[in-house]
Amino acid sequence: MSEGTPAAPTSTPRLVGPVEVIGTGLLGTSIGLACRRAGLEVLLTDVLPEHVRTASGLGAGRPKQPGDQPQVVVVAVPPDHLGQVIGDVLTATAGTDTVVTDIGSVKSGPLTAVASHPEVARYVGSHPMAGSERSGPLAGHEALFEGRPWAITPHLDADVEAVETVEELVKATGAVPVWLTPHEHDRAVARTSHVPHLMAALTAGRLATAPPNHLALSGQGVRDVTRVAEGEPTLYGQIVSANSEAVLDLLGEVRHQLDQVIAAIRTGDRATLEGVLALGAAGTRAIPGKHGRPARPMQSVWVSVPDTAGQLAKLFADAVESSVNVEDIRIDHDPTRPVGLVELVVDAEQADHLLDSLESRGWTTHR
Amino acid sequence: MSEGTPAAPTSTPRLVGPVEVIGTGLLGTSIGLACRRAGLEVLLTDVLPEHVRTASGLGAGRPKQPGDQPQVVVVAVPPDHLGQVIGDVLTATAGTDTVVTDIGSVKSGPLTAVASHPEVARYVGSHPMAGSERSGPLAGHEALFEGRPWAITPHLDADVEAVETVEELVKATGAVPVWLTPHEHDRAVARTSHVPHLMAALTAGRLATAPPNHLALSGQGVRDVTRVAEGEPTLYGQIVSANSEAVLDLLGEVRHQLDQVIAAIRTGDRATLEGVLALGAAGTRAIPGKHGRPARPMQSVWVSVPDTAGQLAKLFADAVESSVNVEDIRIDHDPTRPVGLVELVVDAEQADHLLDSLESRGWTTHR
Repeated sequence: MSEGTPAAPTSTPRLVGPVEVIGTGLLGTSIGLACRRAGLEVLLTDVLPEHVRTASGLGAGRPKQPGDQPQVVVVAVPPDHLGQVIGDVLTATAGTDTVVTDIGSVKSGPLTAVASHPEVARYVGSHPMAGSERSGPLAGHEALFEGRPWAITPHLDADVEAVETVEELVKATGAVPVWLTPHEHDRAVARTSHVPHLMAALTAGRLATAPPNHLALSGQGVRDVTRVAEGEPTLYGQIVSANSEAVLDLLGEVRHQLDQVIAAIRTGDRATLEGVLALGAAGTRAIPGKHGRPARPMQSVWVSVPDTAGQLAKLFADAVESSVNVEDIRIDHDPTRPVGLVELVVDAEQADHLLDSLESRGWTTHR
Repeated sequence: MSEGTPAAPTSTPRLVGPVEVIGTGLLGTSIGLACRRAGLEVLLTDVLPEHVRTASGLGAGRPKQPGDQPQVVVVAVPPDHLGQVIGDVLTATAGTDTVVTDIGSVKSGPLTAVASHPEVARYVGSHPMAGSERSGPLAGHEALFEGRPWAITPHLDADVEAVETVEELVKATGAVPVWLTPHEHDRAVARTSHVPHLMAALTAGRLATAPPNHLALSGQGVRDVTRVAEGEPTLYGQIVSANSEAVLDLLGEVRHQLDQVIAAIRTGDRATLEGVLALGAAGTRAIPGKHGRPARPMQSVWVSVPDTAGQLAKLFADAVESSVNVEDIRIDHDPTRPVGLVELVVDAEQADHLLDSLESRGWTTHR
């Protein structure tokens, strides 16, 4: 496979389906929808029959029937149950070629739980870096994984065919495979997901008891910092607990540096304070651009959008017509105003073209 | 003025210009652009002549010339220099009606610096809740303040005409005035801006030294949590230092809760961990205007205000003490009458509480 050009298929596709999804919450339902879009048959299972009905009604697949023989099983249950369910599936499919993966946020724990299973070679863990502060099948979306990193974390005894099948599944959803060992994965997500979530929660916690007139000063910054903290406390409690070692290492660093900040502010030690802030700025620059590309210069284009039905969808449609790749969309929707402001983040080189295109379609833009 | 209908202007607009902007960085340039859009003449000043040239070239105004007589001066210099520059402007405009405001992120410090100035009545602090992780005049934007909260923080000796002129300036930029005392403002922004910024920096700092393949798992969550940490370290060092007392109070709370989280993860105390996460989730829901919630029903409360120095500021202070979020203030200021009528627009649910609170402080209210 040569770098830089799209890979031509090197062999008959391994992934032909059916794909079984166990757990039809936000992620399971989205995987079903993405696989259906890719033309694969999808079988749905959940301890909550109404979730299966909802996901099925959304087009994510059909309820699994006795006698169905899935080629791949995706275990998408809450973290506390992952090891148990993966082991049960390996046992239930003993003697077959069925590949089993899970999409849990932590990879070492489930692997440890099934490491001594005689058929562990058919299991390959994975983890899509996509989600939402919403949950449940109704929040599912076929494009949830589009362009997002999806970690694949093979263990040493994993069957190569099984690994490649999981890679095809990841690509079928539109995600970008990222290869890590289970241990490295867990240390990575502690840093890029679990600790950021806890820090967002600690920050948002200060807002819970604030006087309402103080919160009137909330700008985009605090909304961004705290957004992920809206996620379901029970779920994130499970995730963080399942990755306690890596999370505690980083929280120790945070606590040490928080103490430095407190002392620096108290004593007026501006150099130390600026040092911590500069390290943070360096950290934001270390985050790779989308799809793992180096970060390109971006530019924002603002558009006034009347707050009437369909106007936002029309803006997106017009932006798409301009053939400009919109990297990010931020909607500043103040319910007390009749006009909202939408920020479209695009390649700096494409900004002028987008502005011209939108203006020619009657939009009021701001450079 | 009847309830339910927008207030017609009760007098000739006070704000006619010119508006002088001292400091043509991101915010100063954006204010110039917004005022020009509103048809006001704008005069630009900066210690860096190239910044004035850039801002002027972008259409934010023209360089100030000797003999120019600004009606309003907006001091938009870095926090460390605010008090000095505000005092200098008051002295340079002694004997005139020139109104002076600043847009510093902290309000108590600059006020203290000029509190004993003989012409302090012409100074009214303010603070737009808008910005960007970018800086400099080139990042300026005429729509930066559109629909954003902009705090106005009158002190007890502020001239009523000056307060109203600053309110008109805020509205001319498209921003939404939020009324707070200087002290309350500083406590509010510690919570909604300064501490979130520090938390983002502490989180982002963990990314600065991470292995690149770990960072490949960065999703939208960590990008959002850390985005504001990209801001200039020197500037944010000044801002945080200028608000040290309120920031330290909150960082003490954060440190206490971080210790709880560390202990809970270490000992497997899932209930405590979930409690912290649930408090965070509640905090995100406390931010006003999220999810495009429908506008809440509003109600007006009228208060008679003797037209003597400091009475309006005292009303604001008393309203703030009641912890009611004042959405709008309309001043019916008839120069021939010794008593003015002030309309406070608040959440309908909070109106009775505000009336009780103001009456208990000696105000004459009208339901």
